[in-house]
Amino acid sequence: MTKANSGNFFEDFRVGQTIQHATPRTVTAGDVALYNALFGARFAAQSSDSFAYAIGYPSAPVDDLLVFHIVFGKTVPDISLNAVANLGYADCRFLRAIYPGDTLTAVSEVIGLKENSSRKTGVVYVRSSGFKQDGAKVLEYVRWVMVRKRDEAAGAPGDLVPDLPKVVEPKALGEACPMVVTRHYDFALAGSQHRFGDYAAGEKIDHVDGMTVEEAEHQMATRLYQNTARVHFNQFAQSKDRFGRRLIYGGHVISLARALSFNGLANAFHIAAINGGRHVAPLFAGCTVFAWSQVLDKAELPGRTDVGALRLRTVATKDQPCGDFPYKQDAADHPAVILDLDYWVLMPR
Amino acid sequence: MTKANSGNFFEDFRVGQTIQHATPRTVTAGDVALYNALFGARFAAQSSDSFAYAIGYPSAPVDDLLVFHIVFGKTVPDISLNAVANLGYADCRFLRAIYPGDTLTAVSEVIGLKENSSRKTGVVYVRSSGFKQDGAKVLEYVRWVMVRKRDEAAGAPGDLVPDLPKVVEPKALGEACPMVVTRHYDFALAGSQHRFGDYAAGEKIDHVDGMTVEEAEHQMATRLYQNTARVHFNQFAQSKDRFGRRLIYGGHVISLARALSFNGLANAFHIAAINGGRHVAPLFAGCTVFAWSQVLDKAELPGRTDVGALRLRTVATKDQPCGDFPYKQDAADHPAVILDLDYWVLMPR
Amino acid sequence: MTKANSGNFFEDFRVGQTIQHATPRTVTAGDVALYNALFGARFAAQSSDSFAYAIGYPSAPVDDLLVFHIVFGKTVPDISLNAVANLGYADCRFLRAIYPGDTLTAVSEVIGLKENSSRKTGVVYVRSSGFKQDGAKVLEYVRWVMVRKRDEAAGAPGDLVPDLPKVVEPKALGEACPMVVTRHYDFALAGSQHRFGDYAAGEKIDHVDGMTVEEAEHQMATRLYQNTARVHFNQFAQSKDRFGRRLIYGGHVISLARALSFNGLANAFHIAAINGGRHVAPLFAGCTVFAWSQVLDKAELPGRTDVGALRLRTVATKDQPCGDFPYKQDAADHPAVILDLDYWVLMPR
Repeated sequence: MTKANSGNFFEDFRVGQTIQHATPRTVTAGDVALYNALFGARFAAQSSDSFAYAIGYPSAPVDDLLVFHIVFGKTVPDISLNAVANLGYADCRFLRAIYPGDTLTAVSEVIGLKENSSRKTGVVYVRSSGFKQDGAKVLEYVRWVMVRKRDEAAGAPGDLVPDLPKVVEPKALGEACPMVVTRHYDFALAGSQHRFGDYAAGEKIDHVDGMTVEEAEHQMATRLYQNTARVHFNQFAQSKDRFGRRLIYGGHVISLARALSFNGLANAFHIAAINGGRHVAPLFAGCTVFAWSQVLDKAELPGRTDVGALRLRTVATKDQPCGDFPYKQDAADHPAVILDLDYWVLMPR
Repeated sequence: MTKANSGNFFEDFRVGQTIQHATPRTVTAGDVALYNALFGARFAAQSSDSFAYAIGYPSAPVDDLLVFHIVFGKTVPDISLNAVANLGYADCRFLRAIYPGDTLTAVSEVIGLKENSSRKTGVVYVRSSGFKQDGAKVLEYVRWVMVRKRDEAAGAPGDLVPDLPKVVEPKALGEACPMVVTRHYDFALAGSQHRFGDYAAGEKIDHVDGMTVEEAEHQMATRLYQNTARVHFNQFAQSKDRFGRRLIYGGHVISLARALSFNGLANAFHIAAINGGRHVAPLFAGCTVFAWSQVLDKAELPGRTDVGALRLRTVATKDQPCGDFPYKQDAADHPAVILDLDYWVLMPR
Repeated sequence: MTKANSGNFFEDFRVGQTIQHATPRTVTAGDVALYNALFGARFAAQSSDSFAYAIGYPSAPVDDLLVFHIVFGKTVPDISLNAVANLGYADCRFLRAIYPGDTLTAVSEVIGLKENSSRKTGVVYVRSSGFKQDGAKVLEYVRWVMVRKRDEAAGAPGDLVPDLPKVVEPKALGEACPMVVTRHYDFALAGSQHRFGDYAAGEKIDHVDGMTVEEAEHQMATRLYQNTARVHFNQFAQSKDRFGRRLIYGGHVISLARALSFNGLANAFHIAAINGGRHVAPLFAGCTVFAWSQVLDKAELPGRTDVGALRLRTVATKDQPCGDFPYKQDAADHPAVILDLDYWVLMPR
């Protein structure tokens, strides 16, 4: 029998099953530099040790999404190597700040299974958690993916659709964020004078700038996360696929949209939670990504006067500037929309 | 009113105005590695902690141009987001060596303003300074750019063309360079036996090698510097522009030319000052960059017997080897020339 | 006379000649991150400080092949700038683990010279060694290259073909590997339960996955190693060559094959030696690389019960999945094969 991993198929999963993922990964200043080179993020707390130290971090924390992508990457060989589609995320909470030198590992628990009526595929729900070297949980999220069956005749391994929160409650936000010394938060250095109180629910912000993606860029990003999903790297195989192209990792679009969102949300220095997200359409190299955001809600954090939380919808498009906030069209998704992300950020009050 | 930054227009500037730029940036070993991967620099002092320590640095300093690009990048959102063209540099002096772990910030002072006769644009002169976390000035330079007016009918905000030095005086060179222990300077490890005394004013050197630039490379470089100039990243917008292509950041060409210049100038271990420079023509991905240099002048540094200064003109071309030193042609620029840079380097005596 | 290096030609070499190569290079966490981004390696010991420490390393060692490429890169300006072809490797042994912060230098000794009958070229045999800052030898290997003569009429500088071992003896393996605490080797984190005892001589393993290479990727890799071979970077010159394309550094293929081999050889955590290797055909950007391996032999290491050695042949192909183990065809190389590498890896017993 072969020693190469061909991944799990739908009938290989069981509800309650726990999977320890390979490969432990020490995050370094090198990873941070590559992340900066790929996305051009400009949030001051992640960019500067001095700024971060002044406001209460021991040093610049690693970008939340870089941590997410590394943890996510570890789950791919066990969970989604035979996936047809990544269907959704829920209840993603960032629980600890990560610094260069920390080592990340990941574990997933299967919390739901639902065979599709075709009997060719089924939906696998996992709650994945990232841990650091001292055992502390760093990150937790639920993801569901449509996974192929190896054998259509195989029985369904379970039938349970988990009950998932639509929104992470404000009281669960902020665990990864130290008490911020707002009097030392330099708004000029941060790039904007707009703080929590300046944003209103319903407000829409066009992030103006566009960023074109090259094949080398998304390949380097995804390998950096040790994400092994073949659709991102293997043009030989993809050329026989319906798109004929390598698909760009959905998380690449999330990071591009987050980096673009600096222009209008410069003080949203921390992603505290992701409520949900849809990769509405695939992105291919050569396209230019734009983004806009809407403030869906505002929340105070229990016991904290330093920061408040904005619930944002950030929409990313391809080859379509966002001055008129493209989203829906005739009750369907606007054809240029590629990402619809619902998340909480923290901002100084 | 939108919270996104659309940049300053010509009429927004005032002579004497001081601008604190966002985002503070801690330089790391990761940034250095990326810089190496993008340009293939081989100067020994910047490449090796052991070599640097032996000659008098505490450890390998960060490449001078990487420091320049990071400081420059910070000025873009405030100074040149609405620029039509980057017209020139003057009086650029490197004042402190930077090491991984140092944090850079940037401030610019508006030192000149001159409306163009079209009244559609004007020239903005700024003196930009980079600082490290202890407040020491690291770098200072003057740049002038042609910036669009928001409103043609707006009055000119001033009319002053500053008096700028054509050349940085030798006595102002070397502040960022420790006293070099030349007896510990290993010329075999450095890659050449040619020292200060071996170069003659007027001498021309073909750097021989060529380097082809890819879109992913210049995009990664420019994002690494947090330079937000849209012309480098946004193919969707650029496809409607006169060139139809993304423009490569002029500083990318400077770094390529500097890296190529190792072949012939291996012991020019430090750029002490930039006297001036012209981006003669734009560079696009797919082109191959070549370079040659001429020694314009030689200078001793007051009170220093360890190193001497060479004033160089380095000319970069695209798709044109430099064996016959292309520069001018029929009193105009040679059509292959893209960069004409006048600067001082230090070399062991 | 020009100060630019045009490299040595065949008649410039002498048997017994020793060449100290430029540029000393401090390896950093940034180099490691770039290596990961370029190849997506997933071996646990190189990826995680915690994992490495648990099994006996002080921290995660730098990937063996990254060390090899950096040492190799230094030899290029002196040995192979005028090479027509890289003919082979032998007797490559890894002698010390390298960690971020270590500085590498390289020295080569000419151990053989053989003019070709055409009198236009000759074969140069060098034994190249890498050293770290404390003088310890890190790596040693023999390479032979066909080098052009500057002047066909020049006499042959020597005529000696060295006697080289076909295989590194098992007793010479493992110097760079600490005594591994196998009870702390976590096979779940490492990604596979298969250990030394589970592999049989003759066994073949398809590594399944494919990886497409972009121009920006191999250029960044090769510049990271300060490898100056012009064929990798200069499209202007290459467009006039018989292939019309930039050639990808052969070591890039070795690293891709090694990274792909994780899928089936996850516990082969250390390359102890390279017995020989052939770059069977060139690789160009846009192609997708696949790989398979065969266990050629197994060996115990004298005095060591912690790890055993597998002698592997890893074959890489372009645009050809390896499910049927392509290698030879009608007594010639299979047309899709680009690499045939014979090496020893260590694996926990």
